[in-house]
Amino acid sequence: MSKLELIHQLQATVEALSEPGSFKGLCHQHHDGNPLPSGKVLEAIIELSRSILLPGYFGNSQVNLDTIKYHIGVRLEKLHALLSEQILAGLCFADKNETESRQQLSRRRNKAGILAAKVIMSFPNIRKILATDVEASYEGDPAATGSGEVISCYPVIKALINYRVAHELYKLKVPLIPRMMTEMAHSETGIDIHPGARIGHHFTIDHGTGVVIGATCVIGNHVKLYQGVTLGAKSFPLDTDGNPIKGIPRHPIIKDNVIIYANATILGRVTIGEGCVVGANMWVTDDMLPQTKKIRKN
Amino acid sequence: MSKLELIHQLQATVEALSEPGSFKGLCHQHHDGNPLPSGKVLEAIIELSRSILLPGYFGNSQVNLDTIKYHIGVRLEKLHALLSEQILAGLCFADKNETESRQQLSRRRNKAGILAAKVIMSFPNIRKILATDVEASYEGDPAATGSGEVISCYPVIKALINYRVAHELYKLKVPLIPRMMTEMAHSETGIDIHPGARIGHHFTIDHGTGVVIGATCVIGNHVKLYQGVTLGAKSFPLDTDGNPIKGIPRHPIIKDNVIIYANATILGRVTIGEGCVVGANMWVTDDMLPQTKKIRKN
Amino acid sequence: MSKLELIHQLQATVEALSEPGSFKGLCHQHHDGNPLPSGKVLEAIIELSRSILLPGYFGNSQVNLDTIKYHIGVRLEKLHALLSEQILAGLCFADKNETESRQQLSRRRNKAGILAAKVIMSFPNIRKILATDVEASYEGDPAATGSGEVISCYPVIKALINYRVAHELYKLKVPLIPRMMTEMAHSETGIDIHPGARIGHHFTIDHGTGVVIGATCVIGNHVKLYQGVTLGAKSFPLDTDGNPIKGIPRHPIIKDNVIIYANATILGRVTIGEGCVVGANMWVTDDMLPQTKKIRKN
Amino acid sequence: MSKLELIHQLQATVEALSEPGSFKGLCHQHHDGNPLPSGKVLEAIIELSRSILLPGYFGNSQVNLDTIKYHIGVRLEKLHALLSEQILAGLCFADKNETESRQQLSRRRNKAGILAAKVIMSFPNIRKILATDVEASYEGDPAATGSGEVISCYPVIKALINYRVAHELYKLKVPLIPRMMTEMAHSETGIDIHPGARIGHHFTIDHGTGVVIGATCVIGNHVKLYQGVTLGAKSFPLDTDGNPIKGIPRHPIIKDNVIIYANATILGRVTIGEGCVVGANMWVTDDMLPQTKKIRKN
Amino acid sequence: MSKLELIHQLQATVEALSEPGSFKGLCHQHHDGNPLPSGKVLEAIIELSRSILLPGYFGNSQVNLDTIKYHIGVRLEKLHALLSEQILAGLCFADKNETESRQQLSRRRNKAGILAAKVIMSFPNIRKILATDVEASYEGDPAATGSGEVISCYPVIKALINYRVAHELYKLKVPLIPRMMTEMAHSETGIDIHPGARIGHHFTIDHGTGVVIGATCVIGNHVKLYQGVTLGAKSFPLDTDGNPIKGIPRHPIIKDNVIIYANATILGRVTIGEGCVVGANMWVTDDMLPQTKKIRKN
Amino acid sequence: MSKLELIHQLQATVEALSEPGSFKGLCHQHHDGNPLPSGKVLEAIIELSRSILLPGYFGNSQVNLDTIKYHIGVRLEKLHALLSEQILAGLCFADKNETESRQQLSRRRNKAGILAAKVIMSFPNIRKILATDVEASYEGDPAATGSGEVISCYPVIKALINYRVAHELYKLKVPLIPRMMTEMAHSETGIDIHPGARIGHHFTIDHGTGVVIGATCVIGNHVKLYQGVTLGAKSFPLDTDGNPIKGIPRHPIIKDNVIIYANATILGRVTIGEGCVVGANMWVTDDMLPQTKKIRKN
Repeated sequence: MSKLELIHQLQATVEALSEPGSFKGLCHQHHDGNPLPSGKVLEAIIELSRSILLPGYFGNSQVNLDTIKYHIGVRLEKLHALLSEQILAGLCFADKNETESRQQLSRRRNKAGILAAKVIMSFPNIRKILATDVEASYEGDPAATGSGEVISCYPVIKALINYRVAHELYKLKVPLIPRMMTEMAHSETGIDIHPGARIGHHFTIDHGTGVVIGATCVIGNHVKLYQGVTLGAKSFPLDTDGNPIKGIPRHPIIKDNVIIYANATILGRVTIGEGCVVGANMWVTDDMLPQTKKIRKN
Repeated sequence: MSKLELIHQLQATVEALSEPGSFKGLCHQHHDGNPLPSGKVLEAIIELSRSILLPGYFGNSQVNLDTIKYHIGVRLEKLHALLSEQILAGLCFADKNETESRQQLSRRRNKAGILAAKVIMSFPNIRKILATDVEASYEGDPAATGSGEVISCYPVIKALINYRVAHELYKLKVPLIPRMMTEMAHSETGIDIHPGARIGHHFTIDHGTGVVIGATCVIGNHVKLYQGVTLGAKSFPLDTDGNPIKGIPRHPIIKDNVIIYANATILGRVTIGEGCVVGANMWVTDDMLPQTKKIRKN
Repeated sequence: MSKLELIHQLQATVEALSEPGSFKGLCHQHHDGNPLPSGKVLEAIIELSRSILLPGYFGNSQVNLDTIKYHIGVRLEKLHALLSEQILAGLCFADKNETESRQQLSRRRNKAGILAAKVIMSFPNIRKILATDVEASYEGDPAATGSGEVISCYPVIKALINYRVAHELYKLKVPLIPRMMTEMAHSETGIDIHPGARIGHHFTIDHGTGVVIGATCVIGNHVKLYQGVTLGAKSFPLDTDGNPIKGIPRHPIIKDNVIIYANATILGRVTIGEGCVVGANMWVTDDMLPQTKKIRKN
Repeated sequence: MSKLELIHQLQATVEALSEPGSFKGLCHQHHDGNPLPSGKVLEAIIELSRSILLPGYFGNSQVNLDTIKYHIGVRLEKLHALLSEQILAGLCFADKNETESRQQLSRRRNKAGILAAKVIMSFPNIRKILATDVEASYEGDPAATGSGEVISCYPVIKALINYRVAHELYKLKVPLIPRMMTEMAHSETGIDIHPGARIGHHFTIDHGTGVVIGATCVIGNHVKLYQGVTLGAKSFPLDTDGNPIKGIPRHPIIKDNVIIYANATILGRVTIGEGCVVGANMWVTDDMLPQTKKIRKN
Repeated sequence: MSKLELIHQLQATVEALSEPGSFKGLCHQHHDGNPLPSGKVLEAIIELSRSILLPGYFGNSQVNLDTIKYHIGVRLEKLHALLSEQILAGLCFADKNETESRQQLSRRRNKAGILAAKVIMSFPNIRKILATDVEASYEGDPAATGSGEVISCYPVIKALINYRVAHELYKLKVPLIPRMMTEMAHSETGIDIHPGARIGHHFTIDHGTGVVIGATCVIGNHVKLYQGVTLGAKSFPLDTDGNPIKGIPRHPIIKDNVIIYANATILGRVTIGEGCVVGANMWVTDDMLPQTKKIRKN
Repeated sequence: MSKLELIHQLQATVEALSEPGSFKGLCHQHHDGNPLPSGKVLEAIIELSRSILLPGYFGNSQVNLDTIKYHIGVRLEKLHALLSEQILAGLCFADKNETESRQQLSRRRNKAGILAAKVIMSFPNIRKILATDVEASYEGDPAATGSGEVISCYPVIKALINYRVAHELYKLKVPLIPRMMTEMAHSETGIDIHPGARIGHHFTIDHGTGVVIGATCVIGNHVKLYQGVTLGAKSFPLDTDGNPIKGIPRHPIIKDNVIIYANATILGRVTIGEGCVVGANMWVTDDMLPQTKKIRKN
């Protein structure tokens, strides 16, 4: 291939890749001036959220009772600005209607600001629940030397902050962003929690890599999982076109005080009763009565 | 330890660590002026590739039919420059011959530019296949709300972009770089696909963490995997020195329309026939006839 | 919600989140001027360590026998400075005594410098062991094309550098930092090795995602693991308050020349004898005699 | 001062500095969501303008006839986006009316986009004039080795790009931004050209530090200045309140082919006729007839 | 020169440049752990100071009466931390005593914190004076369209912020840092004000490039300078070794309401009386009586 | 202008600006793969040079006799690499021959490496001269509190480092780069020294803004200038085409021990004899006998 041929080939490739038909369905042709939610901005939002919820451990590591209100105030203002902008991007993304008027955009911008405020107003409550998650991680792990170590090092805490914030967004029906947030934690920790799942307090996951918690899971209080646990769907009813029907409850219900050991797999809308123990590598597709155990006899 | 002793000890450590014998086999003493392939540059190459293949979702999120050709043109030119340079680094790395002449270097630089162009010319085709992968992910997952969500959030898409680009490099026998690219996706998504594997269209992996697809795997079309699936080698024949013989087909062949559920393990050069279903946590080391199922009876 | 209400609500949230009671146990109110160990600085420390231990592969990729001592010298000096500062932060973090005098701080700063020097003095030895780990990875994998590929691409090498440096810190009883370092490798590679584990030479892990090696594990030489292997605790004795007793040996002992295949789970203080083979997905809670195998009969 | 007193004093200072009365007239309390024009963005705008006007010398230094249109296209699109946003900020800044409706904002955003486009449409003409400026600098300086050196090194070229772009903005009555742009060149080069001045083609300034060209100057073609030249106002008529009346022509008119040597000072609305020469350190406050010289007799 | 010779020559140069004798007096061999004041940190300090003194114009351009106290609080805390650290560096730099005890360092650290607080406590007053400087610039310049333009664009404002903060440090006898701060403004604006000069309120400089204001100048209120004005020393008395005697008043005293036009030079400890006017390019080495003018007759 | 018209107008502008004729002489169409010298890289080269010549004041501010050789070694290696690359770019820029063979490029690369080494080998000598410049600045200024302050703050030192390095490049006939280096100092300090000027030891400039030293100046030892001094050309002989003849000596010769006060202007190939004093604002176009003074009588 001569140098000239090479240039021509590359230019032909530019043409081919710029042909609109070629990226049909793969390219987001979004509304004028409304970009997609941005991974980089969502990372900043998560950093800010962590630094507000667990001050001193994340963000500015110098915390001081005399000045903490200034820091919380500045971060919260910034968080509201960034979150409003991203929620607006998510709302625009979800809306297929291309001929949006300026008035609609203005109303939507307003709505985004209010949704962002609602999420932030849930932070005091999120902090309270995170405190129980930290406690559960510390108390359940003989290797933990203190709650400081748990907050600084344990992947479950990072995954839960992302999930608990994303779940608030999910409840407000914000599109796209909740899932992007939990996938960021998935990439960072190997823990994949769908933002639609409902999870109680004092929740913990040890090690965590490979854990999957599906969109319609309901998890009680004081539940503990180990690495590689799947709380998944068994099969999904198809519609008349052979496509899975969306939105049907299809993942397990885990009651209070359940422990599920490493690599266990629980599939379908089954109920694991209060106080149950599921052994490592177990395969569960039926309900378990409260206080029962399912452990492999070797 | 006094301050003076400390300084002396540290200097003795510098001496010890600078002793050439100490890093024999651990240090790349490369040819004059030819650095190793660089992780940072490969990250930029992956970012560029993603932004060319799925414009609007990656890279500059503002895409516009009027100007897209300018963007594709600029990115493709930059991609060719970076990729040529990295391929050259890979070629130099692989060549143990230390007394390379300037003429060889010049020929190799030329070759690197042509190889980079060949990879880029495959992009229109890669985009076509990725479109089927996105479609498969969307249709197979009741939790997916649209193809936009699949492209933005699903780790499998990131892993497949890296794999499909790396596979083109692998077919052109470019050393080192294909594996670095798939390991970058492995770190980001927990999905470990060897660049040597051959994978058909409409391929998808749900959740993905812990999936392993070995170097000599052959995977058909419309195949779906879940998290934790291993398509591995069972054992490898040793040569007369007791070392594994390299390059022998040793991983499974997966035919069209196969589903393999979470944490299943399939080992060795077995064939899983068309339309088979392998249940979660299953262990398979023999061929499966087409349209058969292997599911745990509890 | 009017704009004014929104502002008031956000300010009320600032008040709520600044209320000291609300972040009790969640906020590190550290000693004057002594920040927490910093994730960003620890990343720099790991980068420096990698570039010193495996020059040419990490850090400045241009290595040259004529000038390598300058580079090692500069990096080692910087490493000592950063590590001393982080160890000091770790020591201050662990010390709950709030009324520390300036003299104590000065003594502690001195101690941190000495501990950092001790860790660095172990680097020549760490490099020697890493050389055996690279060798083991290369020889055990038919897909590996050379030790250069192993060092550049294999996640196990990154995980082992972090672990082997962290283990030196752990032996010197430095708080918090060893665990932060191994969690950084956990996030990057999916391999979770507790810094307290003891691991011999010629150690390797293939693929790696989901591997867990507990705090009191003892692993011999020439041991090979595959992805998803758990070396965990079975159960932990509780104290009279119902809390797990910390510090008791509770993880497996793996003797020399053992191979453990993908997703196997070994729990409790059992001993896996020399030369044993544990098959994929196996579940082991009892000792195994030397040279025995435990493989699933399909 | 004890530590406690220090904290109290600092908090009292925070209170004092947050007291609205204290920053009256010093703080821009801008309209909701409309920030001030940003120095950083204006720097990016200047960089882009330079890279479009003189491709290959500024911005991406690799220019290639085959692909230059892609680069110009991408840069021009980005320039339009950034410039629209900054012009909008400038328009909002200038408008003191606080109770702006959303409709006004929408109209203003539209206007900003059109103004930005108008500035960009003047770029082909600006490039033509800059070509004459480069030529004049090269031909007038025995130390210049080529036009490449002039473009790469001579501060006058940087100052003129900023001025010529700023002057287009000034003609369109965009507030604030033109002056910010010429002040950026002032800081970089020591050459202070008011964006309101009118300057012909083939203009050059040697060395440049200390040159001042006032807002109502009119400069012909083929004019050359040296460092330290002031084209200033002599005195300004005051209004009845004793304040200078704004907008009256008060700076010199310099006709074609004039040379003004170092540190000369020309003040007031005087006319320096065609072909005049003003010697170094001269002081001129009266008209000069064409083809006359004013040089110090030692 | 062969490649080998080149390497040897460079290594010989390393040896030569590392020879301690060669950098005697040119290298700061500072006390253990106490670096020099850092240009980068001082830039951050200036940025912070500007953003506190003129909120909305510098730093975060979004200012809002509801949250400004949070911003001032956070910035002021950060400013105190950075300034304390730099003052400490300055104190250590100035102290030639090499065998400093840890106790001295501790006392000095304390002192640095108090000095930094004192500077910050002067900010409300500095802001008040700056308000008069902005007013003077606006009222004296027919080209100024508003005080916003003055604050955003006029170099004199930047130079005066640096000077007024540096002067507070100078009064507290902090070494090195005041001069570094005013030199930063000198580089940015071409205005060189020694931090020791004393300058009243309503001070302004038009254009500014080349202005020099010496260390012992005393300038009254409502004074206006133009570009290129020098307020310098005429000659300095020498000591018996022929070296200039440091610290003697040797620069002009400028009384209230004086105007000094472009490039005028006033040298020595002369007094320019109230209301005087000094014309452009004038040379003054004697006292001027109040209300007199010195203007060139052409 | 409608949105569609706007897009069309912008695209027409792209076309106009991409038309090769439009940037003739303004665009560097350089040889394949050889970019222009880069301002950013030259800044890094200057930073490195400063940190090698005056260790502890520039670059890494922590200097330590035990480890300084490592730092000098690393910096010098990096400097050689960057400087070689930039010199190569300069050589390619100057060579108008478009059909350069690969062999020529290879020879030129070799030459660039040798030229870079020669410049670096002059550093021990440059450091010696800079030591005298620092001494001269300190001794001549009653406001200087020590040589540390001179090195840290005085713009003349920065300008002289750039000049003295650039002059070495100039003597080796490296194109473009020397001038770019001195222009960087010009922008930073307002001092414009042509790299072709020859300047002796113990040279100093007070304040500096506006100083111009022409290409063929010859300056002796122990010379002191003040701000605004011009050592320029008076007029240049024209060739038969009316263009200035390049390369003729046309700037002043300043002998040892001369002092030239602020804003003095000396023009043409005149000789200012040993020990002369030129007063502020003086205008000199004739020789001055040794030990004479030229001072304004007021």
